[in-house]
Parts: sequence; structure tokens; C-alpha cells
Amino acid sequence: MGIQYTLELVGTTFFAVSGALAASDKSKPDWFGVSFIGFITATGGGSLRDMLLGSYPLTWVNNVNFIYAIIGGVFFASLFMTQLKKIKPYLLVFDTLGMALFTILGTEKALNFGVEPAIAAIMGMLSAVMGGVIRDVLTNEIPVIFRKEIYATASIAGAALYLYLNHLNVDRMPAILSSIFLISVIRFVAVKYNLSLPKFGRKSL
Amino acid sequence: MGIQYTLELVGTTFFAVSGALAASDKSKPDWFGVSFIGFITATGGGSLRDMLLGSYPLTWVNNVNFIYAIIGGVFFASLFMTQLKKIKPYLLVFDTLGMALFTILGTEKALNFGVEPAIAAIMGMLSAVMGGVIRDVLTNEIPVIFRKEIYATASIAGAALYLYLNHLNVDRMPAILSSIFLISVIRFVAVKYNLSLPKFGRKSL
Amino acid sequence: MGIQYTLELVGTTFFAVSGALAASDKSKPDWFGVSFIGFITATGGGSLRDMLLGSYPLTWVNNVNFIYAIIGGVFFASLFMTQLKKIKPYLLVFDTLGMALFTILGTEKALNFGVEPAIAAIMGMLSAVMGGVIRDVLTNEIPVIFRKEIYATASIAGAALYLYLNHLNVDRMPAILSSIFLISVIRFVAVKYNLSLPKFGRKSL
Repeated sequence: MGIQYTLELVGTTFFAVSGALAASDKSKPDWFGVSFIGFITATGGGSLRDMLLGSYPLTWVNNVNFIYAIIGGVFFASLFMTQLKKIKPYLLVFDTLGMALFTILGTEKALNFGVEPAIAAIMGMLSAVMGGVIRDVLTNEIPVIFRKEIYATASIAGAALYLYLNHLNVDRMPAILSSIFLISVIRFVAVKYNLSLPKFGRKSL
Repeated sequence: MGIQYTLELVGTTFFAVSGALAASDKSKPDWFGVSFIGFITATGGGSLRDMLLGSYPLTWVNNVNFIYAIIGGVFFASLFMTQLKKIKPYLLVFDTLGMALFTILGTEKALNFGVEPAIAAIMGMLSAVMGGVIRDVLTNEIPVIFRKEIYATASIAGAALYLYLNHLNVDRMPAILSSIFLISVIRFVAVKYNLSLPKFGRKSL
Repeated sequence: MGIQYTLELVGTTFFAVSGALAASDKSKPDWFGVSFIGFITATGGGSLRDMLLGSYPLTWVNNVNFIYAIIGGVFFASLFMTQLKKIKPYLLVFDTLGMALFTILGTEKALNFGVEPAIAAIMGMLSAVMGGVIRDVLTNEIPVIFRKEIYATASIAGAALYLYLNHLNVDRMPAILSSIFLISVIRFVAVKYNLSLPKFGRKSL
């Protein structure tokens, strides 16, 4: 539980930073609004996963350190906002690492609940993307999963790799790191080369 | 449990088709986005119902066949999209049958949980309409329940009929079929004659 | 449990009134749409709180009186809509009292679940504001927490006072009343003098 706990805390902080940065782009929100969005981004996906699985108590409800991690992330975003916004890849790094961590943790948690691998991958992906989706709905943005670059697909691919390595009895840490690596590579390559999936419709079949 | 399971699987497929068709109307979504919307439309209402009732494990979390049903529905929508869009009533049929099935299944499930009939009808209606409402929120549409034709009202009427027949000890299948029939008739008549409920406000009392 | 039950019923009615009034501002919704929004506004925050805590059965699922309270609130809004809209502070009063009641009830309920005080305050605040946030998302409004006047902050301040008085072993009723009073005063002063929190960003630190 030690590694899961640490990684979830780190992922939560990353998501709080990315949520606060995203919120601060909107028309002059106040401190509370930005913190609230940071909180929703950081807890939304994991809370949905836990409520769908019936996994009580929820991580952040049971442990106040997650709240401190979120407050820390929002403060960090505030202090370094100007610098962070200049270096755009930084934003991508926070969001991608948060997303990758939550994908693997969510998949693992769902597996431990005894669901089938396909469901576990979906749970991992929902943990990873739904915080951002809720953030986008609340701030009237087009949800992240519908924007251009491959996003949730990277999450599903990482979850699939983790499940496969798990099936081959690969040790936990190498399996986690390989999956995080895969998600990050897919995401960075997709953003750099502006890749997207084929459009839906008959011709694309 | 056999009939409930079969009907829920059929309703899920219908909702996935209608979700995918609705999503494909938006500005060129990719395959993943469309599948995601199909998934949300198909699982959203039932998941909310189960989380509100505390009915764990959730149907689709416990049984991977629901995922296959959704994938099948999205593929079907993709293959026959052009044809399906030409014949507008087809769309209405999928959505109405999905909605009618979920209304009755949701009402029944809630009754089995021991809630009062009025609550069971609300649960049936939420199962039936919330998948579509979440779909509309994510794709920035005005939620289906606020659009013109009678929609959630048809669901509530069907749930009420089912509860009444249940109260009269009518057998399960005739009760289910009558209620589905009532919902479909109300919905088709409302669409055909462009009917709507009275507007809210003093004059309409 | 008697007072908690009564207050939750009163808060639910207030929220149903404010939800129905908010919905009726939109382009001519029908009766069902307005009732649905009243219902979501009144039950959304408390349902989310209970699902996050894993507190089953949910209050309104277990007791049909909450549905009657909502129907009553929607009727009341319909009968007195013209008058209520002329006297703007009335709207503010309904919303603020509903919000204050839900803050304290939510905080108390979470405390009884054994969560830490900081989490309890967040649960109180979520109970109080999320019904309105969901209402705003469904009606395509900018969520209430991002609009100008101090809102969720008043809720958190009231929750903090309640927790402090609770910590000092102050009796329950005076603690509840003082916290409701604090929330109302902050909110009325903020609206009257158009106060808002400092904007997020480096300069505001």
C-alpha cells in the first residue's frame, strides 16, 4: 500500500497544479474558484472510480493529506504561474504524469476488486481522465477527451500494457514504470506531431 | 434475473447506438470520442441509479458483456450511420426503446431495494434519462429533458403504469410490455404532433 | 435525529424554490423541466455528499417526504414567481438559508462518519454548493461558485465556525444557529457591497 499511497499523493498534486493552471486561464477567477477547480480535477477521477467500484472509504475522504497535497499544488501553481505558462511543455508534463499515474493506480485498484481486465482498464482510464472532464464541464471548455491530440487512448494503451505485464507476472515496479513510460511517449509524440485517431464514420472503417 | 439481464443488455446496446449517432453529429469526433460517448450514454443512467441506491456491484462493472454490447452498438452505428441518419424515425426508435427498457428495469430494481413507489418511479426515470443528459452536457448540447418533445414525462408515465400494474399483481411480462408500449406511444405521438407540456409560470396553472 | 431531519427537509424545500426560480429564467421551460431542476438542485449536493461518504441509504431515497417537500417548493415558486422575482432579496434569502442549512448538516453528518474536521468542512461545503453547481451546468449557466460574490467561501467559513464551536463543546443548537448566522451575514454583506475574493495569480499573493 506504501507505493500506491505515495504515487496517488504525487498524482493528486500534479492534477491540482494542472487544474489550477487551467482554471486561471478563465476570466479572472478568485482564489477560491481556482482551488475548487484544482480540488475537483485532483479528486474527481479517483472519486468516480471508487464510487463506481463501491470502494469505501474514498482515498481523500479517509486521509487529510490529499487535501494538503491539493493546497500545495494550487500554491505552487500560483507562485510559478508566469514561469509555468511560458514553458508550455511543463504543463503537458504535469498533466501527462498525473494521468499516467492515475491510469495505473486505477487499473490496479479495480483488479484488486476482482473485476475483469477490460473493466479494470476502463476504470484506470476513467480515474485518469474524468477529473479533467469534470473540470472542463465546470469551466465550459470542450472536454479534454474530445480535443485534438490522443489523450484517453494513451491512457487505455498504458492500462492494457500494465494488464499484460501483470498477466506475465512481471514485477510490480517495472510494470508500473513501463506503462507510465508508454503513456508518456504516446502522449508526447501525439502532441509533437499533432496526431489524432481516425475520424468516426463509414469511410474511416 | 434472466429477463432483467437480457433487457438491460438490449437497452444498453440501443443507448450505445443512440449515443454514438448523437456524438457523430458533432464536429468530426474521432473513434475514441464517439465510443466514449456511447459508453457514457449507455452506462450513465444505470450507474447513477445504482450509486444512488447503493446497489453494488454495478451491472456493467460486474459483467464484461455490457462492454461488448456497447462496442457492438458503436460499430453498428458506424456501419449504418448514413442509412440510419436518412431514416430519422429509426433514431427515435432506438432512443425510445432504450429509454423505455431502462425506465422499467430501473423502477423494478429500486422496488426490489424496498424504496417507496414514488422513489422507484424517480429511479426508473433517472436510469432512463440521465445517460442522455450526461451525454448532452459533455457534448455541449441543451440536455434532452429540456428540449421540446415530451421525454422524461413519458418515462415517468410508464413507470407509474408499471407500478400500478404491479400493485394489481399483474404478471411481470404483461406489465413490462404494457409500460414499454405506453412510453413508446406517448413519445411517438409527442414527436409526431410536436406536443409539449404547459410552460411553467403563473398563467399555466 | 429529529432536528437534523427537520432542517434537512426545510433546506431541501428552500433549494427546490431557488432551483425552480432559476430554471424559470431560462427560455420557457415546461413544468417537468422546472420540477426536474428543482429536484436536482435540492438533492444534488446531499446525494453527492452521501455517495462520497458511502452513507447509505441516501436521505431522499429512504424517505418520500423529501419528494413532497420538493414538489411543494416548486409549486410555491410557481404561485409566487412574479412576486418573488420583483423582490430580489427574497431569492437571495432562500438560496442563502438553504446553503447555510446544508453546510452545517453536511459538516455534522461527515463528522459523525469519523472523518477529520477539514474533510467534514469540505463535505459541508459540497453539500451546500454542488446542487446549485449541477443546476448551473444543466442549464448552461456559469457555475454559481465562479460568479462574483463570495459564495462557497461563506459556506466554508460557516463550517469552520461550527467545527470550532463543536471542538469547544458548545451546545448543538447555538453552534448551528451561530454558523448559519455567520454564513448569512458574510453572504449578505458580500452581495450588498459587491465583495469578492482576491483574484488568483502572483500579484495577489
